[in-house]
Amino acid sequence: MPVNTPPAIADIRRAAERLRGLAVETPLLESQALNERLGGRILFKSEVLQRTGSFKFRGAYNKIAGLDPKDRARGVVAYSSGNHAQGVAAAAAMFGIRAVIAMPADAPRAKADNVRRMGGEIVAYDRHREDRTAVVCRYVEDGMVLVPPYDDAAIIAGQGTVGLELSAQARELGAVLDAVIVPCGGGGLTGGVALAVKDASPQTAIWAAEPEHFDDTRRSLEEGSPVANRPGHNSVCDALLTPQPGAITFAINRTALTGAVAVSEPEVFAAMREAMSALKLVVEPGGAVALAAILAGRIDVAGKCVAVVLSGGNVDPDLYARALAAD
Amino acid sequence: MPVNTPPAIADIRRAAERLRGLAVETPLLESQALNERLGGRILFKSEVLQRTGSFKFRGAYNKIAGLDPKDRARGVVAYSSGNHAQGVAAAAAMFGIRAVIAMPADAPRAKADNVRRMGGEIVAYDRHREDRTAVVCRYVEDGMVLVPPYDDAAIIAGQGTVGLELSAQARELGAVLDAVIVPCGGGGLTGGVALAVKDASPQTAIWAAEPEHFDDTRRSLEEGSPVANRPGHNSVCDALLTPQPGAITFAINRTALTGAVAVSEPEVFAAMREAMSALKLVVEPGGAVALAAILAGRIDVAGKCVAVVLSGGNVDPDLYARALAAD
Repeated sequence: MPVNTPPAIADIRRAAERLRGLAVETPLLESQALNERLGGRILFKSEVLQRTGSFKFRGAYNKIAGLDPKDRARGVVAYSSGNHAQGVAAAAAMFGIRAVIAMPADAPRAKADNVRRMGGEIVAYDRHREDRTAVVCRYVEDGMVLVPPYDDAAIIAGQGTVGLELSAQARELGAVLDAVIVPCGGGGLTGGVALAVKDASPQTAIWAAEPEHFDDTRRSLEEGSPVANRPGHNSVCDALLTPQPGAITFAINRTALTGAVAVSEPEVFAAMREAMSALKLVVEPGGAVALAAILAGRIDVAGKCVAVVLSGGNVDPDLYARALAAD
Repeated sequence: MPVNTPPAIADIRRAAERLRGLAVETPLLESQALNERLGGRILFKSEVLQRTGSFKFRGAYNKIAGLDPKDRARGVVAYSSGNHAQGVAAAAAMFGIRAVIAMPADAPRAKADNVRRMGGEIVAYDRHREDRTAVVCRYVEDGMVLVPPYDDAAIIAGQGTVGLELSAQARELGAVLDAVIVPCGGGGLTGGVALAVKDASPQTAIWAAEPEHFDDTRRSLEEGSPVANRPGHNSVCDALLTPQPGAITFAINRTALTGAVAVSEPEVFAAMREAMSALKLVVEPGGAVALAAILAGRIDVAGKCVAVVLSGGNVDPDLYARALAAD
């Protein structure tokens, strides 16, 4: 498939074939307590239980599996705050190739530790002063293949397998999905899920959820073209701090999405607590924004059947304890 | 089946039929990081993801489903620190019958809240001064049916469905189980799992894990007859504080178990942290003792394939944060 156009549904199905037996078919869980409180049926696609603790393994593996073997043998390079890094390191280890990852020096410790454990080589850089593109550039010049975090058809196709699975799992439960809500950074997961879910059930609404100050997809949808986040803000949602939507991801999302909503840090922490007590799942801040969106009433789920993606669970214990205590 | 003898494998299979579509077929998860660290393959039967947050729904539902409908209509009564209480309340709600639960006044708040939410009526009693049997007695005299926590063939058969499932799930993964390790209070889960797993693979060793000072099954196995715990101790593992093995459960466990091991509170907290970071699962203290047993080296798993049951995840956020911070 051309790399600068969205993947087709066939590409997502092929990614699912490649991932069979390697990626976890993560469960679609529900909580009677949450259903009663929200007055709808909420199904949680639990990617915190995925290999490497987030959905990112899916896209990274699909990308690396699709490379020409000669290119692949030279190794891969990526930049990431942590979840994509772990996905790339895990997939590279399966192919027995080298993986170099540029990570911001302030990335969560757990994420960096896991990348190292899987044999990934970390190149730390200063998120505020250094250009990560320049950091990876010299490795690409040496012949290593860049595995982009989201704006790539093979990556989007891999993340789209989340949507294939949740559609099939909902059908098995006899559930007809009114909406699917997806945590959104660069838009790769959102776009891939949108393509897969819309193929299975065109009437299902797809929503993106973002952290406040990093609601570039929401603002871009309003503007009709990609808009960057305003500088000078930070967020506890380290997994979602991308500067602006990708060209390919936005091309998908501008037509596929019903809308996007932003949630605050207290709302994210409340969602992490709810996932702990009602679902027994450890969800990282960025992984909890879609749940936060419905708990905060940003998207109305009363009387509806809605799938919520919990996209990752790689949170340091100190921050997790802080979220639990924030009540 | 007679109530004072162990269930047969056919009773466990019948329980599985009754629970189909009602109980969650909880996933058998694994962590590459833990596998590498321990040098074996560890498969986690994740009952924290079960309806009501612990395995207890299985036995309670199976018991209530097997009652004569006329008896059942009069409602059920149970005593429990919380997990059995929630299981009974959820199952009773499904049958539309009354459930009265005697709970110690110091039971975890989350457990009591959930029982109430599901329509259960709580009768609080003082664990140190009042006899819980006397508390439930007047309800039984009024014609309500007692749903015992563990020493009952229908309860054991229900809990045994955990063993049926994990055996089938391990087989699907191509894994041959050398051992299964089960958190043990009164022995209902341990006994049920032992019967089911031994039927599927007689060579698999079954181990019970208990909190220190509440290692009545370990000491009973040594003595060859049921021995009570010595008074004067407490434990953070509220789910496992039974006074001594049951008559039926011990009849099963004395022949089916390879052994039992006890773990300390710091070891339990370490296991809860490990489940959080490596598995993204919230596990309560009593639910983490089997994982604690292998992390502490009480049972050697090097070079082996071992299933570990994570039996429950109903822990109050304060205690959970304490466990995460205990490092």
